[in-house]
Amino acid sequence: MFLLRNIKSLVLTETNPQKMVLGSQMKQLDSIENAWILLENDIIHSFGSMENCPQHIDNQLDATGRLVLPSFCDSHTHLVFAATRENEFEDRINGTTYEEIARKGGGILHSARRLEEMSEENLFQQAQKRLSEVIGFGTAALEIKSGYGLTVASELKMLRVIRRLRESAGISIKATFLGAHAVPTLFKADRNAYISLIINEMLPNIAAEGLADYIDVFCEKIGFSVTEMNQLLEAGAKYNLKAKVHVNQFNCMGGIAAAVRHKAISVDHLEVLDDDDLAALRSSDTIATLLPTAPFFLNDHYPPARKLLDANVAVALATDYNPGTSPSGRMSFVWSLACLHLKMTPSEALHALTLNGAAAMELSDTHGSIAVGKKANLLLTKPLQSLAALPYSFGNDCFEKIILNGKII
Amino acid sequence: MFLLRNIKSLVLTETNPQKMVLGSQMKQLDSIENAWILLENDIIHSFGSMENCPQHIDNQLDATGRLVLPSFCDSHTHLVFAATRENEFEDRINGTTYEEIARKGGGILHSARRLEEMSEENLFQQAQKRLSEVIGFGTAALEIKSGYGLTVASELKMLRVIRRLRESAGISIKATFLGAHAVPTLFKADRNAYISLIINEMLPNIAAEGLADYIDVFCEKIGFSVTEMNQLLEAGAKYNLKAKVHVNQFNCMGGIAAAVRHKAISVDHLEVLDDDDLAALRSSDTIATLLPTAPFFLNDHYPPARKLLDANVAVALATDYNPGTSPSGRMSFVWSLACLHLKMTPSEALHALTLNGAAAMELSDTHGSIAVGKKANLLLTKPLQSLAALPYSFGNDCFEKIILNGKII
Repeated sequence: MFLLRNIKSLVLTETNPQKMVLGSQMKQLDSIENAWILLENDIIHSFGSMENCPQHIDNQLDATGRLVLPSFCDSHTHLVFAATRENEFEDRINGTTYEEIARKGGGILHSARRLEEMSEENLFQQAQKRLSEVIGFGTAALEIKSGYGLTVASELKMLRVIRRLRESAGISIKATFLGAHAVPTLFKADRNAYISLIINEMLPNIAAEGLADYIDVFCEKIGFSVTEMNQLLEAGAKYNLKAKVHVNQFNCMGGIAAAVRHKAISVDHLEVLDDDDLAALRSSDTIATLLPTAPFFLNDHYPPARKLLDANVAVALATDYNPGTSPSGRMSFVWSLACLHLKMTPSEALHALTLNGAAAMELSDTHGSIAVGKKANLLLTKPLQSLAALPYSFGNDCFEKIILNGKII
Repeated sequence: MFLLRNIKSLVLTETNPQKMVLGSQMKQLDSIENAWILLENDIIHSFGSMENCPQHIDNQLDATGRLVLPSFCDSHTHLVFAATRENEFEDRINGTTYEEIARKGGGILHSARRLEEMSEENLFQQAQKRLSEVIGFGTAALEIKSGYGLTVASELKMLRVIRRLRESAGISIKATFLGAHAVPTLFKADRNAYISLIINEMLPNIAAEGLADYIDVFCEKIGFSVTEMNQLLEAGAKYNLKAKVHVNQFNCMGGIAAAVRHKAISVDHLEVLDDDDLAALRSSDTIATLLPTAPFFLNDHYPPARKLLDANVAVALATDYNPGTSPSGRMSFVWSLACLHLKMTPSEALHALTLNGAAAMELSDTHGSIAVGKKANLLLTKPLQSLAALPYSFGNDCFEKIILNGKII
C-alpha cells in the first residue's frame, strides 16, 4: 500500500465514474482539498479528505502544497515513424504550404518511403525512445496509428511494432489501422486499386493477427473522399474495427455526419466545422478530438472548441504526435494551447486530456480520473497555487513526480 | 583542458568576432562539420575540423551525431517577481483583455503589491529557483529588469535581489531599472509626481549603489508617453544608464524613433511597426528585440520579423519571462515560435537568440558565439539530423548536456 497525504488538491475525482463528460459538464471539476489517496499495487484503493486519513501505512509521501491529478490519456498519435521531417518545416518557413508539400511527394509519402527502408527492430527501438519520453511527460494511455506503411508489408510492420510497444511499455496502448492515410504514388492513377488493397489484403491480414483495435481514414481533399471513407469503414466493421477518423482538418466535406452514422468512437481534428457538422455531433456519442498542436505548427486556425462545448459535445484533446505536423508528444503543452488558443478553461481542458481522452480509446473504465478501482496513474505537481498554474506555465515542467501503475517512475 | 570531439556540427563559429549580426547576414550561419572544440577552464581555447584534432587531452567527450552550439543569451526578462498570475490567465480565457486587466489594477500593479509584501530574502530564493530552471534550459547570459517595485524601497529591493543573483549565479547577469513600468495607483491623479520620484529619488539611490546597467520605460498608451520616456531616458543618461526600452507592444506612438535618438541599445517588443518606426531603425545601431512568447500568450499578433530582417536591422529574441504575459524562460521554445510564427529561418533565429541577444546586453565580446577567448558556454544536443530539428521539436527537450563555464552541469 502506498499513501499520498496532505495533498493540496486531489483533482478530477469521481464517486460515480462516468464513461465520458459532455461539453456543458466539463467546466465542473470535482476535487478534494487537503486530501489523501491510497494505492494498492497498480490500483487506486481509496481516497478522501485528510480528516479521515488512513493510519499505519508504512509507505507514505507527503504532498503538502502539491496537486495530484490523473495521468494524461493521449488518444491520437502517430508515434511510430522512421524519420523526422524538419526539412519540410524549413520549406514551410520559406512559404510552401502543407498541401503543396503533400502534392510534391513530401509529407506522408516521404514518411512512408523512409519507413519502408527501416527494419521492424530499428523502428521499434526508435518508437520506444519516443514512448519513454511521452511517459515522462505524464501520459499513461496512448493510441498509435499505422499509416506510414501504405503497403501490406509495411502496414503490418508498423502494427507489429505497436503490438511490441504495447507488450513492453507498461502503459495502455490502442492500435489504429490507418492504411487510408494517403494514396501511394504507385496508385495515383488508380486509387480504387489502393482501396481494394486495403479492403482485400490489408484488413484480412491485420484481423488475422489481431493487430488493430480501430480503423481510421484521412477524409480530406488531399486524402480520401466521404464515399471512400464510407466504403472503408464498412469494410473495417466486418472485422469489428470501430471507426476513429481524421476529418475536417482543412475542409468541411460531410465527413463528420458520415462518421457519426458509422458510430465512430471519435472524429479528430475539426479545425473547420460548419453547422451540419455541429448538428451531426450534437446528441451523438461520438467524441470530438481536437489536436491544437497541428494548427500551432502549421500556423493554421484553431478548432472552434467553444462551439463544440456549447453544443454539449464531449471534447477530447490529444497531441497528434507525428513528424509532419506535430513533432511533440507533450500533453501539458496541448493543455496550454487549449486554454490560450481554444479558450477552454483549465478544468474543461483537463477533462479533455484525461477522461474524454480515455473514452476516445474506450479505456475510461480504467483510466482518466481518480476513482476507486481505476489504474493508479497519477501526476504529482510541484508546489502550485492552483490548477490553472499548469497550463499557464506553458514552457516549464510542472510535474515533480509521475506515478505509473502505483509506482513513482 | 576539456576536449569535445567528433562533433557532427559545431554551430555559429566566428573567426573574426562581430559585435552583432545585421538582418541580411543572419541567415548565413558559420559552422564546422565533423569538428572539435577545446576548453581551457571557462574559456574557449580553440576549435577546428577533426582532421587537425588535438591529441593527448585526458578529459574528452565524444559528441558523435551531436551538434554543439553557443548557449542562449536572454536579453529581456522580468525574472524577479513575487507571485504568478494564473488568475488573470483564467480571466483572459473568459474574455478580459490584458489592457482591461491593467486598468482594473491587475497586471503590473498586482505584481507590485505582492512584491512589496515579500522580504528580499524570500524574493531572492524564489528568483534563484527560476534562475536555476532557465540555466537548465540553456541560458548563460541574462538581463533582469526591476519594475514590480514602483516605490523607492521596493525598486531598490528588486535591484538588490538582481545583484545577489549576479553574485551567486555563475552566469552573466545585467540589471535594468524599470521604475517606469506602470504608474502606481497612489500617483494616478499626478503622474508627474511619480516621474519626479523616479528621477529625483530612485535614480540617485540606484546609481549610488551601482545597482543598474540600463534604464527602461514601458512606452505605451497604458504606460508612459514618448515625452515622458524622453524625460526619463535623459535623466538615466546622467547616471550613465543606457536605454533599453519597451515600445510598440500594442500601439505605434513614435517611441522607436525617440529611443534611437537616445542611442538605445535595444527597442523591445515591436508587435506593431509602422514605416516611420522602420525608417528610424534602419541604419541605426539599435537592436530590435522580439519577444514572441508575449503575443503567443496574449493571443495577439506577432512582430513583423521579416520586415526588420529585410531592412537589415539586427534582430534579437528573448523570453520576456514575467508572470503576466510570458510565464516561461525557455529560450528553445522562443526559437520554435520564431520559426513557426515570425517566419525566421532556424539560422536567423539562432543568431537572434545568442550573438544578438548578447549584443543587446553589451556582452558579445564574451558571449553569444563560438570564438576563441569567449566563455565556454555551450549546448550539446541529442543526436540530431540538422539544426532545424531543434526549433522543429517545439515541445521536446533536445539538449543532452549543458556546458557552463567549461563544465557540464
